[in-house]
Amino acid sequence: MSNTTNACAKSRIILDCDPGYDDAAALILAAGSPDIEILAVTTVAGNQTIEKVTRNARRVMALAGLTDVPLAKGATRPLINPPVVCPEIHGETGLDGTTLASEGEEVAVDSRHAAQLIVDIVMREPEGTVTLVPTGPLTNIALAVRLEPKIVERVKTVVLMGGGCRIGNVGPFAEFNIENDPEAAAIVFEEKWRKLVMVGLDLTYQARATPDVRASFKAINTPAAQFLYEVLEAFGEKYRKNRGFDAPPLHDPCAVAYVIDPTVVEADPAPIHVELAGAHTRGMTVTDLRRPAPEGTTTHAALRLDAPRFWAMLRDAAARLG
Amino acid sequence: MSNTTNACAKSRIILDCDPGYDDAAALILAAGSPDIEILAVTTVAGNQTIEKVTRNARRVMALAGLTDVPLAKGATRPLINPPVVCPEIHGETGLDGTTLASEGEEVAVDSRHAAQLIVDIVMREPEGTVTLVPTGPLTNIALAVRLEPKIVERVKTVVLMGGGCRIGNVGPFAEFNIENDPEAAAIVFEEKWRKLVMVGLDLTYQARATPDVRASFKAINTPAAQFLYEVLEAFGEKYRKNRGFDAPPLHDPCAVAYVIDPTVVEADPAPIHVELAGAHTRGMTVTDLRRPAPEGTTTHAALRLDAPRFWAMLRDAAARLG
Amino acid sequence: MSNTTNACAKSRIILDCDPGYDDAAALILAAGSPDIEILAVTTVAGNQTIEKVTRNARRVMALAGLTDVPLAKGATRPLINPPVVCPEIHGETGLDGTTLASEGEEVAVDSRHAAQLIVDIVMREPEGTVTLVPTGPLTNIALAVRLEPKIVERVKTVVLMGGGCRIGNVGPFAEFNIENDPEAAAIVFEEKWRKLVMVGLDLTYQARATPDVRASFKAINTPAAQFLYEVLEAFGEKYRKNRGFDAPPLHDPCAVAYVIDPTVVEADPAPIHVELAGAHTRGMTVTDLRRPAPEGTTTHAALRLDAPRFWAMLRDAAARLG
Amino acid sequence: MSNTTNACAKSRIILDCDPGYDDAAALILAAGSPDIEILAVTTVAGNQTIEKVTRNARRVMALAGLTDVPLAKGATRPLINPPVVCPEIHGETGLDGTTLASEGEEVAVDSRHAAQLIVDIVMREPEGTVTLVPTGPLTNIALAVRLEPKIVERVKTVVLMGGGCRIGNVGPFAEFNIENDPEAAAIVFEEKWRKLVMVGLDLTYQARATPDVRASFKAINTPAAQFLYEVLEAFGEKYRKNRGFDAPPLHDPCAVAYVIDPTVVEADPAPIHVELAGAHTRGMTVTDLRRPAPEGTTTHAALRLDAPRFWAMLRDAAARLG
Repeated sequence: MSNTTNACAKSRIILDCDPGYDDAAALILAAGSPDIEILAVTTVAGNQTIEKVTRNARRVMALAGLTDVPLAKGATRPLINPPVVCPEIHGETGLDGTTLASEGEEVAVDSRHAAQLIVDIVMREPEGTVTLVPTGPLTNIALAVRLEPKIVERVKTVVLMGGGCRIGNVGPFAEFNIENDPEAAAIVFEEKWRKLVMVGLDLTYQARATPDVRASFKAINTPAAQFLYEVLEAFGEKYRKNRGFDAPPLHDPCAVAYVIDPTVVEADPAPIHVELAGAHTRGMTVTDLRRPAPEGTTTHAALRLDAPRFWAMLRDAAARLG
Repeated sequence: MSNTTNACAKSRIILDCDPGYDDAAALILAAGSPDIEILAVTTVAGNQTIEKVTRNARRVMALAGLTDVPLAKGATRPLINPPVVCPEIHGETGLDGTTLASEGEEVAVDSRHAAQLIVDIVMREPEGTVTLVPTGPLTNIALAVRLEPKIVERVKTVVLMGGGCRIGNVGPFAEFNIENDPEAAAIVFEEKWRKLVMVGLDLTYQARATPDVRASFKAINTPAAQFLYEVLEAFGEKYRKNRGFDAPPLHDPCAVAYVIDPTVVEADPAPIHVELAGAHTRGMTVTDLRRPAPEGTTTHAALRLDAPRFWAMLRDAAARLG
Repeated sequence: MSNTTNACAKSRIILDCDPGYDDAAALILAAGSPDIEILAVTTVAGNQTIEKVTRNARRVMALAGLTDVPLAKGATRPLINPPVVCPEIHGETGLDGTTLASEGEEVAVDSRHAAQLIVDIVMREPEGTVTLVPTGPLTNIALAVRLEPKIVERVKTVVLMGGGCRIGNVGPFAEFNIENDPEAAAIVFEEKWRKLVMVGLDLTYQARATPDVRASFKAINTPAAQFLYEVLEAFGEKYRKNRGFDAPPLHDPCAVAYVIDPTVVEADPAPIHVELAGAHTRGMTVTDLRRPAPEGTTTHAALRLDAPRFWAMLRDAAARLG
Repeated sequence: MSNTTNACAKSRIILDCDPGYDDAAALILAAGSPDIEILAVTTVAGNQTIEKVTRNARRVMALAGLTDVPLAKGATRPLINPPVVCPEIHGETGLDGTTLASEGEEVAVDSRHAAQLIVDIVMREPEGTVTLVPTGPLTNIALAVRLEPKIVERVKTVVLMGGGCRIGNVGPFAEFNIENDPEAAAIVFEEKWRKLVMVGLDLTYQARATPDVRASFKAINTPAAQFLYEVLEAFGEKYRKNRGFDAPPLHDPCAVAYVIDPTVVEADPAPIHVELAGAHTRGMTVTDLRRPAPEGTTTHAALRLDAPRFWAMLRDAAARLG
């Protein structure tokens, strides 16, 4: 991550998120990485309502200096499922227990729907150059695909946080982002992208913010690091109380970490389908790991995290943002 | 479109269609009725591909003098289902066996997606003044609702051709428009519109274009009437061959007829839900006619057609268009 | 129904029932008809628990003089569904409000399970001579078929009360007997019987016990007729209160009536499948009436009842039993 | 496994199987263990047709000296699913490539259905003394439970081979025995047994018959050991060819091993439900391993095998049988 990195080599991403503690951390990581150019931030209802997550996005973007990056508000609810948010993990505001200097008014909100902004950017930019990084329910991406099918062949990669192969959180095998809007997820997973990487719970459960990790952020004297320290403490408290975890798994930045350096998050090709019909498995990302994936499989499941390098990446970003 | 009609009394509609023979007739009926103002025409893949139905819409709009009415192209496929079209009933072009003088180049195509145009018009017009008249799969309407939830409370009525209570066509209880995109239909039927009227097969099977009916159009010496005569002959031929019907049911104009005069198409309030999960009933509009609908039921099922008045309406429109 | 009827011409039936008011009437009709020989009565949980319906069966069999007919107790619950009974229509005892002189101790209960008794009789009797008449959930018949698949080709006809084509009672399109155990129903409907006749709600809603009908039973001076009068009054009261019907539909004897004389209950061949997966249609008997049934269709849907002859049949039986 | 084991301490089992290579090995293990008394063997269609697996059961029982043990033939097919057998893993005969001296005529076949025999034995034996060991589809057990619900509280334990937590064989998460008859499996898993142990693929994939293991059977000079050597060679060949495994997993004897000594097969309590509705997960045994099982959970998932002791057990049995 040298300062001489050629701008052309930067990964150019649209971050579609629902902040949320770990989405906030993903924003910080993306904003603070010299290897990433954020083309836009879009929001989607998920961890909290669209109003709350959009407010949070603006506040974190202000902290991260993303005042010139387009921001668009997206889906207020899933395609078919009734709306559900997750206050037991993210609190009533979506960022309970953290402090942010700005209310984010310096970050403008685009008049377009998030899905339309995604379409417009992908169609405007050169083919094969834009990476989509969804870290919330996939409603906006699904709407974008159905509004403009051509984006599928133009997007470089979809690197999403969601799902899992052998474990779930909101169900035995269902993860929150996918289970929240399974039809949207099915739309996204069934399209023929050049490459789609599912960064799911198998991977993100390896990104546990232990006391040592948390202390390492406290020791960095920048507003971004101090905010991340608050995030990890608050997130940890929620996970202890409501899921019985010693240390909280910091899901969303793992997807950004893969974009920055795919060797930090290893992913294997595998057929993946979203279960829509199951009585016990609706929202499961059914991943076939029984044998090597068939030739031409473009969906990938993230399985192994280099956790020390991941946390170092996040610390670097928080330090660099100042 | 007589000069003495009070403009305020006109029903102002967006016609969302997939022409197709009967959609073409619906366009003619709407264009030729003094009681209707067409705010926009939007197209959706269904009877044929989006390219073919959009070309057909332009050609029929040219014939009907709708050259100043905005036209927008919409969904190329259903939300979840694989794309399916219906050449056995509408032919390879969607209007096989008919002749139209114009290719429709005089009708401009809006750059917006149909769903966005619907949103823009409903949000622009006074609340409670716009009626949506979908006569194809409900993909565009579902996308519009998910892009801008506020349209639901602003739309006056949704009068759609689709579904049925006690009979289906593509399945024992599934009708083509709904079965084509059941998730879109579920989105539309589950929203809390002021009023939604399902003009389904129970009703449209009463609009049979018998030889007498067909002859009555041949006898009217206007291009629109001659075109409708061709439509009815071609449609009849397809229905005879592929469904074993003596006379074809002219589905889509029945929805327009209801907008023009609700006494021509009687509809009873009834709870209606779209079945998404059935092995034998996916796409069924499950209508509860066991007892009077609960207070506050806003979904209605059309059950009785005044067929003579319906055909007279269509003849009047075809004559008036010249 | 002359006294000279050749015994060989009698229909030999196993009546599988869950009395219940209308099952009791079916027992009376079968017992009092000179054209029917009852080989066995079997019971199944449905209208009430297996203990209650078996007690009721014994009491009605005592009244009807069926003290030598084998009786076996069957399924206590559906295959997959949780157990559900129907006190709102049949009362806490299954025959609330009726009087019966005997507790039925003179009717022995076979030690075998109903399903095993059905198997044993069908395998013992000559091929093609036994008619199954289920008037409750199809659990026993399904178990019998899975215990001994050979009964399918040996049974003459299955004439069942259950299901419906265009109307339901416990759901918009689901009837109680089928919805109670849809998997059992699916097993029965999907087997290749020589002939299966579904006597469903379309038909039985034509057997309304109007005040005139009820009075006609009161006027017959036999215990069986007086019991039927009580049944119709009590059943009517339940239907008035809980379903808003003026006159109760006497479902189950319609199946027996078909066995006695198929011209009283007309049935058309039609493909029928039981929906297992629907969110709104689970338990629906999906009947394809769109066009004439394909050659070789052996499932039939009863559609038209000769109601006057039906009631006359039942009166004759009640008079004959004394 | 000392010779002084008190007979009273023996586990008394009914082995319900579909031999099949590994079912044959399970029979040998049970027959040769001093800690097990086989009350009956029952057969079910699965690896092959009911005729073939019953013939195989008789042949292996003859080899194992089980000529006095009752044998009953059971279900010819699943409850709802169409019949499917597994020749690619077990060959056309179910034991292709093995040699057996006897055709098994010395083993009598009971006239009762397997389900009825299971009911009769469980109701006859003292409460809490009979262990059911199903190693095929669960059709017989489900039928027995529905014929006589009281067996549920009388059975000591159900130790079944089937299912899995994090891996499948016939689907990404579906195992053959469960997927073959998911409704039967759902019936069995949802009943309130004193204890149910699922010995699934997570466990049995640890019982790989490596070349060393196979050689160790060849070295034992008894007919049973030589037969097992043939079984392992043939099974290994099928798994190599059709599933790409280096060494075949010997599933079914693992369930018997648990009965002999529960410390060889460790199992954790966990909620388990069989998925019936999934498009990608029908037949999955959805096991909730997210957190410690709630108090009172009686279903267990086998997770860890002591493979060396397991193979030693099987060798001992094969040696003891002579």
